[in-house]
Amino acid sequence: MTLATGYRATTTPGQVERFDFERRALRPDDVEVRITHCGVCHTDLHALGGSAEGRGDVPLVPGHEFVGEVAAIGPDVTRFVVGDPVAVGNIVDSCGECRMCLAGHENMCVDFPTLTYGGRDRIDGTPTLGGWSSSYVVRESFVYHRPAGLDPAAVAPLMCAGITVWEPLRSWNVGAGTRVGVVGLGGLGHLAVKLAVALGAEVTVFTRTADKADDARALGAHRVVVSKDEADMAAAGDSLDLVLDCAPAQHDLGPYLRTLDLDGTLVTLGYLGAASVDAMDLLRARRRLASTGSGSLARTQELLDFCGEHGIVAAVEVLPSAQVGTALARLAAGDVRYRFTLDMGDLG
Amino acid sequence: MTLATGYRATTTPGQVERFDFERRALRPDDVEVRITHCGVCHTDLHALGGSAEGRGDVPLVPGHEFVGEVAAIGPDVTRFVVGDPVAVGNIVDSCGECRMCLAGHENMCVDFPTLTYGGRDRIDGTPTLGGWSSSYVVRESFVYHRPAGLDPAAVAPLMCAGITVWEPLRSWNVGAGTRVGVVGLGGLGHLAVKLAVALGAEVTVFTRTADKADDARALGAHRVVVSKDEADMAAAGDSLDLVLDCAPAQHDLGPYLRTLDLDGTLVTLGYLGAASVDAMDLLRARRRLASTGSGSLARTQELLDFCGEHGIVAAVEVLPSAQVGTALARLAAGDVRYRFTLDMGDLG
Repeated sequence: MTLATGYRATTTPGQVERFDFERRALRPDDVEVRITHCGVCHTDLHALGGSAEGRGDVPLVPGHEFVGEVAAIGPDVTRFVVGDPVAVGNIVDSCGECRMCLAGHENMCVDFPTLTYGGRDRIDGTPTLGGWSSSYVVRESFVYHRPAGLDPAAVAPLMCAGITVWEPLRSWNVGAGTRVGVVGLGGLGHLAVKLAVALGAEVTVFTRTADKADDARALGAHRVVVSKDEADMAAAGDSLDLVLDCAPAQHDLGPYLRTLDLDGTLVTLGYLGAASVDAMDLLRARRRLASTGSGSLARTQELLDFCGEHGIVAAVEVLPSAQVGTALARLAAGDVRYRFTLDMGDLG
Repeated sequence: MTLATGYRATTTPGQVERFDFERRALRPDDVEVRITHCGVCHTDLHALGGSAEGRGDVPLVPGHEFVGEVAAIGPDVTRFVVGDPVAVGNIVDSCGECRMCLAGHENMCVDFPTLTYGGRDRIDGTPTLGGWSSSYVVRESFVYHRPAGLDPAAVAPLMCAGITVWEPLRSWNVGAGTRVGVVGLGGLGHLAVKLAVALGAEVTVFTRTADKADDARALGAHRVVVSKDEADMAAAGDSLDLVLDCAPAQHDLGPYLRTLDLDGTLVTLGYLGAASVDAMDLLRARRRLASTGSGSLARTQELLDFCGEHGIVAAVEVLPSAQVGTALARLAAGDVRYRFTLDMGDLG
């Protein structure tokens, strides 16, 4: 066992408290990661905002996009040595035997992948406790090599926000000249813009208000459309091949569907509940609606390698982990450009 | 002008009456078609079931899948001569100038294609009156060559039901081994099965009750799933590449989405209103939702040629046009295998 320190949910929704706990003893194929930085995701807000019921027995420790160094390895680990710079994302295991796993789509494991927190370890059944902590123990297959030369604090959000937008960009073959729309310039959206631009796409950002227009252009966007402006939206009709909808709450998909040209696809990423669509919006240009989440092991490593080659990282505001409450409150208010990363150095 | 006889809506929803009217004088690029047979589509039911308001001035003559022979041609017509066997579908004109028309997608004309009935002629502004009539006058571009050797009465439904299912089968590249599901074994569904089988697909039919199972197999289906049987539906999970949803009323799409394997697509064809989907049903296997309607000029002719080569026609029940009321009542009750075609020979 390794003693760890982290932040767990309290009985008050939205609040966390520091506590000490034990990580499991290393199994033969385990890697222990000393965590230096972990991002703050909307998923964390949702998890902490839920009911306090039943939290007594199962601690809820958020955090599923983190970086650090390898602190120890099990005897069968072959891909890492102590000291390697690494990163971990939102899944830490999968069944390895289903058709999805066998085809290299671990994130779509039929048996459901093991989430980095709020899941259950597939071997001992204990709850998984997340990356808002000093260390993590994880099977080496689910650990990624972190490219040199990138600010670790700014790499952490690539592991959830980044892969979430990278997966559809790659699955829909975005490349030179692809016309990509990005709805919402937040944690996911700002990385979608950077990555799509680096892939050679023509990028349009949809933002509710004009105050993010300069930021969008600074990130590389070629066009900014204010979504509240109906004339602006109408002018953008039928002009895009792929729209990544990163808005974190339920909203009308019709206006964004109508910006798609023939055979274009709207992919929802930020909000994963029920969506209503008018079949006519699809039919008028043979458009498609899709939704994706995170990415496979191979695609995640591909993202990190791509970011290393292109010098791409998230735009982050780094706070000492003790200020996690501030990060949560400001994220809930939409007051962050574009992702909070917690510096775990203060956990000692 | 040409005197025509047909059936128009009365002030009583769902009822039609015989009446005489005039077709326009031939323009240089017009073809006059003497109609021998016209199908009865759910769209006709919907149109006749609507409000009676305003019908006094604009007659509603249903019918948008018909066949016949060329009775006369304008001086500029080059593709047809009098006596040619022809067919006409649900659109009779488009703007010809928008990006969709220029790219050969007349059915998605940005200016909206002119519907065979219930539309407005693009030149003189008169209402279009449909194919439940003795003749039709239409631009030659929107007239198709009807292959020899096929029963005309059974060809008529290819022009709406047929092209509606052919368009997604071709757009999603269905071929040898593609795993295709068909929801609902009605006018659209039975043609979807025949065409998909002829393309080499492995076809699964979803039907609410088991009584159509033998029919489905007789049409060539390889598997029949009773959609009311939850165990049967669960066993069909993740097994298909493309599902054509031909059900003519709003229903839960979730169970059908979940039958799709990785990157599979559900295309709604029969019901064109609002649809609600759970993003998780899409996300779990990177599935897509789409909706299509009719097809382009080129694709429609391609369908007719394919049916000529493969001897494919609709399974029809032919009634004299005077019995159109019977056809409407039985279609509303779901009592037809699988399409009614009206024989216009009794219009004299």
